[in-house]
Amino acid sequence: MKIENQLRADVLTDALPYIQKYHQKIVVVKYGGNAMTSDELKDYVMKDLVLLSLIGIKIVLVHGGGPEINDMLARVGKQPKFINGLRYTDQETMEIVQMVLAGKINKNLVAQLEKNGGKALGLCGMDASMIQAQKLTGPDDLGFVGEITQINPEPIFTALDQGYIPVVSTIGIGDDQQSYNINADTAAAKIAAALCAENLILMSDIKGLLLDKDDESTLVQSVHVSEVPRLKQQGIISGGMIPKIDCCVEAIRRGVKRSIIIDGRTPHSILIELLSKEGVGTMFY
Amino acid sequence: MKIENQLRADVLTDALPYIQKYHQKIVVVKYGGNAMTSDELKDYVMKDLVLLSLIGIKIVLVHGGGPEINDMLARVGKQPKFINGLRYTDQETMEIVQMVLAGKINKNLVAQLEKNGGKALGLCGMDASMIQAQKLTGPDDLGFVGEITQINPEPIFTALDQGYIPVVSTIGIGDDQQSYNINADTAAAKIAAALCAENLILMSDIKGLLLDKDDESTLVQSVHVSEVPRLKQQGIISGGMIPKIDCCVEAIRRGVKRSIIIDGRTPHSILIELLSKEGVGTMFY
Amino acid sequence: MKIENQLRADVLTDALPYIQKYHQKIVVVKYGGNAMTSDELKDYVMKDLVLLSLIGIKIVLVHGGGPEINDMLARVGKQPKFINGLRYTDQETMEIVQMVLAGKINKNLVAQLEKNGGKALGLCGMDASMIQAQKLTGPDDLGFVGEITQINPEPIFTALDQGYIPVVSTIGIGDDQQSYNINADTAAAKIAAALCAENLILMSDIKGLLLDKDDESTLVQSVHVSEVPRLKQQGIISGGMIPKIDCCVEAIRRGVKRSIIIDGRTPHSILIELLSKEGVGTMFY
Amino acid sequence: MKIENQLRADVLTDALPYIQKYHQKIVVVKYGGNAMTSDELKDYVMKDLVLLSLIGIKIVLVHGGGPEINDMLARVGKQPKFINGLRYTDQETMEIVQMVLAGKINKNLVAQLEKNGGKALGLCGMDASMIQAQKLTGPDDLGFVGEITQINPEPIFTALDQGYIPVVSTIGIGDDQQSYNINADTAAAKIAAALCAENLILMSDIKGLLLDKDDESTLVQSVHVSEVPRLKQQGIISGGMIPKIDCCVEAIRRGVKRSIIIDGRTPHSILIELLSKEGVGTMFY
Amino acid sequence: MKIENQLRADVLTDALPYIQKYHQKIVVVKYGGNAMTSDELKDYVMKDLVLLSLIGIKIVLVHGGGPEINDMLARVGKQPKFINGLRYTDQETMEIVQMVLAGKINKNLVAQLEKNGGKALGLCGMDASMIQAQKLTGPDDLGFVGEITQINPEPIFTALDQGYIPVVSTIGIGDDQQSYNINADTAAAKIAAALCAENLILMSDIKGLLLDKDDESTLVQSVHVSEVPRLKQQGIISGGMIPKIDCCVEAIRRGVKRSIIIDGRTPHSILIELLSKEGVGTMFY
Amino acid sequence: MKIENQLRADVLTDALPYIQKYHQKIVVVKYGGNAMTSDELKDYVMKDLVLLSLIGIKIVLVHGGGPEINDMLARVGKQPKFINGLRYTDQETMEIVQMVLAGKINKNLVAQLEKNGGKALGLCGMDASMIQAQKLTGPDDLGFVGEITQINPEPIFTALDQGYIPVVSTIGIGDDQQSYNINADTAAAKIAAALCAENLILMSDIKGLLLDKDDESTLVQSVHVSEVPRLKQQGIISGGMIPKIDCCVEAIRRGVKRSIIIDGRTPHSILIELLSKEGVGTMFY
Repeated sequence: MKIENQLRADVLTDALPYIQKYHQKIVVVKYGGNAMTSDELKDYVMKDLVLLSLIGIKIVLVHGGGPEINDMLARVGKQPKFINGLRYTDQETMEIVQMVLAGKINKNLVAQLEKNGGKALGLCGMDASMIQAQKLTGPDDLGFVGEITQINPEPIFTALDQGYIPVVSTIGIGDDQQSYNINADTAAAKIAAALCAENLILMSDIKGLLLDKDDESTLVQSVHVSEVPRLKQQGIISGGMIPKIDCCVEAIRRGVKRSIIIDGRTPHSILIELLSKEGVGTMFY
Repeated sequence: MKIENQLRADVLTDALPYIQKYHQKIVVVKYGGNAMTSDELKDYVMKDLVLLSLIGIKIVLVHGGGPEINDMLARVGKQPKFINGLRYTDQETMEIVQMVLAGKINKNLVAQLEKNGGKALGLCGMDASMIQAQKLTGPDDLGFVGEITQINPEPIFTALDQGYIPVVSTIGIGDDQQSYNINADTAAAKIAAALCAENLILMSDIKGLLLDKDDESTLVQSVHVSEVPRLKQQGIISGGMIPKIDCCVEAIRRGVKRSIIIDGRTPHSILIELLSKEGVGTMFY
Repeated sequence: MKIENQLRADVLTDALPYIQKYHQKIVVVKYGGNAMTSDELKDYVMKDLVLLSLIGIKIVLVHGGGPEINDMLARVGKQPKFINGLRYTDQETMEIVQMVLAGKINKNLVAQLEKNGGKALGLCGMDASMIQAQKLTGPDDLGFVGEITQINPEPIFTALDQGYIPVVSTIGIGDDQQSYNINADTAAAKIAAALCAENLILMSDIKGLLLDKDDESTLVQSVHVSEVPRLKQQGIISGGMIPKIDCCVEAIRRGVKRSIIIDGRTPHSILIELLSKEGVGTMFY
Repeated sequence: MKIENQLRADVLTDALPYIQKYHQKIVVVKYGGNAMTSDELKDYVMKDLVLLSLIGIKIVLVHGGGPEINDMLARVGKQPKFINGLRYTDQETMEIVQMVLAGKINKNLVAQLEKNGGKALGLCGMDASMIQAQKLTGPDDLGFVGEITQINPEPIFTALDQGYIPVVSTIGIGDDQQSYNINADTAAAKIAAALCAENLILMSDIKGLLLDKDDESTLVQSVHVSEVPRLKQQGIISGGMIPKIDCCVEAIRRGVKRSIIIDGRTPHSILIELLSKEGVGTMFY
Repeated sequence: MKIENQLRADVLTDALPYIQKYHQKIVVVKYGGNAMTSDELKDYVMKDLVLLSLIGIKIVLVHGGGPEINDMLARVGKQPKFINGLRYTDQETMEIVQMVLAGKINKNLVAQLEKNGGKALGLCGMDASMIQAQKLTGPDDLGFVGEITQINPEPIFTALDQGYIPVVSTIGIGDDQQSYNINADTAAAKIAAALCAENLILMSDIKGLLLDKDDESTLVQSVHVSEVPRLKQQGIISGGMIPKIDCCVEAIRRGVKRSIIIDGRTPHSILIELLSKEGVGTMFY
Repeated sequence: MKIENQLRADVLTDALPYIQKYHQKIVVVKYGGNAMTSDELKDYVMKDLVLLSLIGIKIVLVHGGGPEINDMLARVGKQPKFINGLRYTDQETMEIVQMVLAGKINKNLVAQLEKNGGKALGLCGMDASMIQAQKLTGPDDLGFVGEITQINPEPIFTALDQGYIPVVSTIGIGDDQQSYNINADTAAAKIAAALCAENLILMSDIKGLLLDKDDESTLVQSVHVSEVPRLKQQGIISGGMIPKIDCCVEAIRRGVKRSIIIDGRTPHSILIELLSKEGVGTMFY
């Protein structure tokens, strides 16, 4: 389609106030779900991040990788083990997780950002002991599933200062140099807090918070964190939404300005979210 | 008009390679003609410049101001004097020129850039002896019309380093501290050369170079400087085009990468020129 | 007159403790009155400022321009309008004020400092929204007479860091980008405060504070700000002295170390004031 | 064993001239072979590198990983394919190579350096397009085996400047963002050249160059690069030694001061090599 | 003696945790006594200091010089004068003290550090008014014996930042520019405090604090400053130990982490003290 | 005497062009002769140097010390030994030279500069191996008289950058760490060259170069270096003038702009020389 010059100019000038708002600000993007498995959507996201980086927004990309880990486990013939519905991470599984996240997905994302003209550097939580962790305690022993004890943001700041987009795999490292499997949403929230980020953006496979979960037209565009307990009580925030929204709230409590859940299935959702007045998801503030 | 998100995203991502190309590069824009006298067009230009500045292009704005000088001369009852068709600049006229350019137009442009969210600083060639000049020699004595002897780019670099858009009035200063009236196209070309700019953009009231000057569809999109003499001989470059194109050629000879004549009457012409593959004027390289 | 080498050396070495005292300190000079209208006195002031700048004092020159504004208003046939004795500034007058201050006087001062070997840069309050202002509120509507709401000292610090003498025209800028006429004494005091200046020097056409206003031998050399209310009560501070001394007091309250009213009619009064033990006016501390 | 203080002091002061010699110099260590597979030897190497880093030597660690790649290929049931004795790297194999090198070995080395008190950062040739490569051309198609076209040393310099030990996996990246399998010795030599390193150290499973390959007492301690062709002709350099020594020679030709082949099976061989007059291998200069 | 490589490596790796502990930390060494008069011991100390400096410890060397001052006084036929057992420093003696300390010993130490490959710069308390002093007050007039009023650490920081080992003669300077004889232990303690040093090391001719002063096996390895008063009461700290230990305590009170009295008669005592777990003296903390 | 304000201002403004000329330039002053032995003259010189330093000239003070060395030699009962009229410097003499220059004169000069409000740092050629020297070769063995082999200007630049006046004793240091007696005029010339100084000023006890050595009115104010050979041939440059003028010429050959011989017996001669159009000696250019 041929776009008219006038329209082209309108779009660009509409973006002006948003470019000003995020100038030299840090935005942490948690990337996962369908946006990561569809090649077409992945290409859109990479292009968007390079664009945002070039116009002066400091992007930090935090990624997960569930499906590819499952594939690899299957290839080595590893039987998954679940305890009360939660996956148990033994040493062999942990090794696969580390290889797939830090060796495959991370470096492939770096390559795709570079291909689109960005400058990117892949890091994992073991580098410079960036994500310090310990064994997650709880009713069940989940093996090497970890919880974060401290974030060392130095290597991310170094990368941002040199103009790189840091791409982060959420593997934690214990005092005993054991590596731990860390939930990527949680890690993104803690990293955003440690960086005093302007925004935390969680890409997911839902539209955002819906008053009626079967009707996308009931999307809630913004929620003050103080309303979250009531929304949980009313059952509007429920199921898989709960941990995601807890991350959003946690990040804001620790100093991040805004946390946003956006729909990664919509092409260019992150670009639209940051550079237009059209919110495409639910913003917590 | 409501613009679709998809379209919005397409326009923004289309701009990506151009944003990369001009990242941290210096672009000198000579601003004049209708784009300066129409309030609507002026507003578009200011918005465009702030946008370009925010996405990492180092914009230097050089302006003229013929019509407002004439208005002011009329208000003080000054009779224009012409010698062989060229305006004679006596001491009183020079004083009015200086006041209108450096006091009125320059500062109003600064205010409009600031209003649109830019950071701007107004300078004239007398500041830090930036545009050093001497009396123009020629068959006729034109009074205080000057020609540039040297450019001191230091204050412009200082302003750019601090993130300002420098706005420059083209008043020259002689060894005797006499101020001189300097042609703004020529000054823009020399400033672009002294800054080793990537682009020199001359905004004018024509489409660009036309093979048939009555038919806008005959626009020449790009010209190698070596072809200019032939185009002059053939009469395709003629009349008022000659000095403008000479400025373009001169800038390229002194190290500027591209000089472009664009039509300031088209809204957002400068944005389209820099951020899309659609050229809107004639580029010399 | 031939000055003996010995005497020459005595004068220079006498200046030593004062050069030490002001080393790398900021001194804001409000320049106006006779020292500005007499060409000979102006030349002395420019030489003094360049000298002070070279020996390591960071000079900021703030200027007014009443008489030249009146001349220009007369030339365009503008009838002055007064309300209860105060000048009303309509839009047309404001435009003339801006042109004369920022276009003529400011740039001519820059040129004269440069001629004497200084490095100077002309700025007005509109540059980088340096002097933010709003309409002055009061019993009478005085048009575009403004009062300062905030000072952005960044462009002055940038200029000082690069070794320039910033020359400042006191035009304010409103949120609506309307320019406002600002009293130069007041602006100098607020700028001195925003810069944490060592000294504020107001050049005027009086000897300083006199106990008997008809006897210059009754000059008061220094006044503690706490004594000002009593001196007003006694009528020793009266008439046109009141606003000037209020500026001095205000500057000190906001952190300036000393405010001094000196007689601009005495040649080199500023040099003598800063570099010898002879005070030439009245110092508030 | 209790070491006498006197002896302790003797060893430390003996090291003094070597510490001076390598102060702030870059040393690239290619790490592989037995020193990498034995846990005890690995621990020695990690301690040595941290020590060298702390006393002011800028260490860059380049690693290979043959055995672990083979293990992983076996675990996914991948049949190795050889062409004229050379391993063919198909897309699936390449993916495993990338995961094992960049995800497992690299990050585990980082963790062990951190555990010993070092600061380490893991990178692979895909990060910031550090190792640019193309398909290796030759008589046989070996799949995604690559040869280096260019090294971008920027991320290594950034890491060194921040006090990190960069740990580098030798995966190359093509223009088409295809990742390539790169020989680690070759990559270490090219990286050393791009960094203008002082030393390139290749850890291997041999004593060094032996005149009689069955008699370790015939170790040649130093060889001038000009002697290499003769030594090849005489058959003293032969077999698997040839590519290693070619890397040493290549590095020296491109500006590295010394290339050394050391025996990684000897504990602390790298420490002894750098900090004592006892060479433990063969030095090319 | 030929040291085995394995042993060599053991010693070096044993030093690793200590090198980490003192990395970029400031250690002030007071150098005097036998370690200064024996040429062999002096050579050991110089080598140790250069080694410590190269591995990243910021060494400041403060020296005394009693014996050489006595020699010079004897050579000029000056009779020593004592008051209640304390040396009286008249103007002539003071001059000799200054010459011997700042001209002879200081510069010879600098030369020996340079000879061993260090970078050294000699300073005395008069440079940049580094050690400001006044006449010591007390029951007896001791002439130009001074007590420190203030330390200006700037020249030491400047030297350390440039990579020099500053060598400091403890001559004080009064407001009247009179030079004063200052006790070197006291000066070292105050300098260590002003620099917020990690360690203060006083080299002396005793093993350290002994429970039984005739039995070196009763050496106390570490003492908390709170225990000092009791140890004095018990007579364990007595005689010449008192002022030295007071200096140690004073330094710790003002922010130094550890003060250590070591035996300068033991070769390489300072190296052993800093780089091994074997303390060689008494540490106060 | 009371100096009139007008006169005071005239002197200060007369100095303006000279202050501009030497702004941030390095001036090396060789200080010796009567200006150093008379307390009154010494005080003038110190005040002058502090003043020049404060107004932005980078002063380096190089001093000699013949008379005080002779005094000290006499005090220790050392018999001078001459060979063909040149003083022989044995080890004992060298030690006295070092003590007197680096310990007494140097530090006393530092104290006097500090007393007058300057910031000063005393250095000798042994510091940081600043003046590298070897035994002077010639027909006679003069003991430890040295000739300069290299100047390491780093410590002087460091001191100037921190705002100090470096005060330099001209003791050289050999490869063997032997200290050498170096002629101060020669050292000043070489230091000036190594610093690319603007001026080298040699203070002496003569008016400058006189055409008739008995008539001070025949002073030559400036000499081009190319004229020196002819002036030597004519006997106008003769005797003790020859080595001084050779130093001047040597400095200019190596890049110093001007070398000046001034009369240290005239109060404030250096101030007059640098800050007025009255030259007070002979300038070589």
